[in-house]
Amino acid sequence: MSTDPMPSWRDTKTRRAIVEFVETVAQGPDAVPASERVAVFDNDGTLWIEKPVIAQLQYLIERWRERLQTDPTLAQRQPYTAVASGDLSWLGGAVDKHYAGDDSDLGVLIAAIVEVTQGMSVGDYAASVADFYRTALHPTLHRPLSQSVYQPMVELLRYLEANGFTCYIVSAGERDFMRPMAEDYYGIPPERVVGSAYGLTYDADSAAVRYTADLSFFDDGPEKPVRIWSRIGRRPLFAGGNANGDMPMLNFARSGGKGFALLVHHDDPTRDDIPYGTGVETALAEADALGYTVVSVKDDWAQVFPAAH
Amino acid sequence: MSTDPMPSWRDTKTRRAIVEFVETVAQGPDAVPASERVAVFDNDGTLWIEKPVIAQLQYLIERWRERLQTDPTLAQRQPYTAVASGDLSWLGGAVDKHYAGDDSDLGVLIAAIVEVTQGMSVGDYAASVADFYRTALHPTLHRPLSQSVYQPMVELLRYLEANGFTCYIVSAGERDFMRPMAEDYYGIPPERVVGSAYGLTYDADSAAVRYTADLSFFDDGPEKPVRIWSRIGRRPLFAGGNANGDMPMLNFARSGGKGFALLVHHDDPTRDDIPYGTGVETALAEADALGYTVVSVKDDWAQVFPAAH
Repeated sequence: MSTDPMPSWRDTKTRRAIVEFVETVAQGPDAVPASERVAVFDNDGTLWIEKPVIAQLQYLIERWRERLQTDPTLAQRQPYTAVASGDLSWLGGAVDKHYAGDDSDLGVLIAAIVEVTQGMSVGDYAASVADFYRTALHPTLHRPLSQSVYQPMVELLRYLEANGFTCYIVSAGERDFMRPMAEDYYGIPPERVVGSAYGLTYDADSAAVRYTADLSFFDDGPEKPVRIWSRIGRRPLFAGGNANGDMPMLNFARSGGKGFALLVHHDDPTRDDIPYGTGVETALAEADALGYTVVSVKDDWAQVFPAAH
Repeated sequence: MSTDPMPSWRDTKTRRAIVEFVETVAQGPDAVPASERVAVFDNDGTLWIEKPVIAQLQYLIERWRERLQTDPTLAQRQPYTAVASGDLSWLGGAVDKHYAGDDSDLGVLIAAIVEVTQGMSVGDYAASVADFYRTALHPTLHRPLSQSVYQPMVELLRYLEANGFTCYIVSAGERDFMRPMAEDYYGIPPERVVGSAYGLTYDADSAAVRYTADLSFFDDGPEKPVRIWSRIGRRPLFAGGNANGDMPMLNFARSGGKGFALLVHHDDPTRDDIPYGTGVETALAEADALGYTVVSVKDDWAQVFPAAH
């Protein structure tokens, strides 16, 4: 019987760097207090698959389809036009334009995103999201989303926890969309899920918290260290990500002096869904220049997804 | 040797109501899962004394005095005029006008508050705040702020934790000003301190999070349930407060069906600093009407502050 805490990791220098770091900060003369052993992880593309489409968009497309059935005239505007036609390239285009500095389509997209939850109580949204997770299949893996997590990363969460770390998710994904899956798939409770947020308001009549029509903030890039401070009040000791928007968080963790930064590189088209576009190139170059630990899916992971049940 | 977990509480119906509730939700057939045993507490006036002035204002006045020494022309505008003259009634007046629906002076006050931290890193502010806590004395108790906490409430925090509760502070006080004292005085770590927040920005050059010149939000009244959801992602099972601005949080906790609401009533002028003005009258009337548990400092607490060392 194996007692290896991370059996899905091959015995490479990447794994050895992680283990050496964890043993240093958790044991021996250079150990840091357990309260400071805070680890933060991006979600989409780091803890689970984000290609060809993030699960949140999959959920939103389902909701937009439902709205189109009730009101077909919605098809006259985006993103409903795209959803009604079945050609979803407008959606990816809105995000690409955003990264190219043009937020015109992103604004249209965000307006349609917040329409889905506007006025809804946080409890009703949580129930709707839980329904989605119960039945949704990943579009190319053709397996439940619960089985579309990166098994080596889930093992890493447990390994860190076994060494006194407290793990948080810090993702551009919407916070309340992640909370149910983070608890079920990763064992990370709602108070440790940091993400983008819709506006909230308290409805005194029903004593319920409800969503407004605003996006409060988009938790990506330099917003990640800001949200880490707001929520946690500490500089993390370990940060894991996979894309350009994770680099400020990784830099923030490393700049404390003892921190560890890990970047997942999706370089295995046979076992993982790729390709990645320009969203990771800067991160890979910077991680290389700064000596961050880059995980090669191809070389470092013996297994990518959990074994099918 | 006494094993009473709450020796500063007299054996009254208030104490008995607390104990009965805690035993019901922590033990026996109606116990709720430990993950749902979330308790939230207001800070100023609930966990420690807030009269005649909240500690945060005491800290700010020290900083404004320092700024006046560097630049005496600041005395031409409020709140520096008040601080320079020694007559601080303008400060209380700004807050009173706010509660009467006029935010003109409050805006001036907030602008001067954010001036103190604008551009400062969160680490430098934490160090400045820690310095303050090390030396400041309460102006009427003439004892360190560490000894100006309500001893029965600190015992209540420990009693709840011993019964599987996780305790949070949810206060209108500024979050990062509370974090050092919450950890030292209450054993509540930074990630469980929810409060009003200055704007933050990430300074990539120094890899530091710094304050902007904005107040992001004022965590009082209906904002408290909103911030509870944002930070914790659960409806609390226990809520404690002392003023009108705490009632939405207490109502939020109670409306879950099993929740407990506790309101501290400062009715003991011989042992506690009062009087309270109009900031608590609505809360007391509403708590009475709704059957919330009202703590009488005079009748329910055998001891108010920690014994002097």
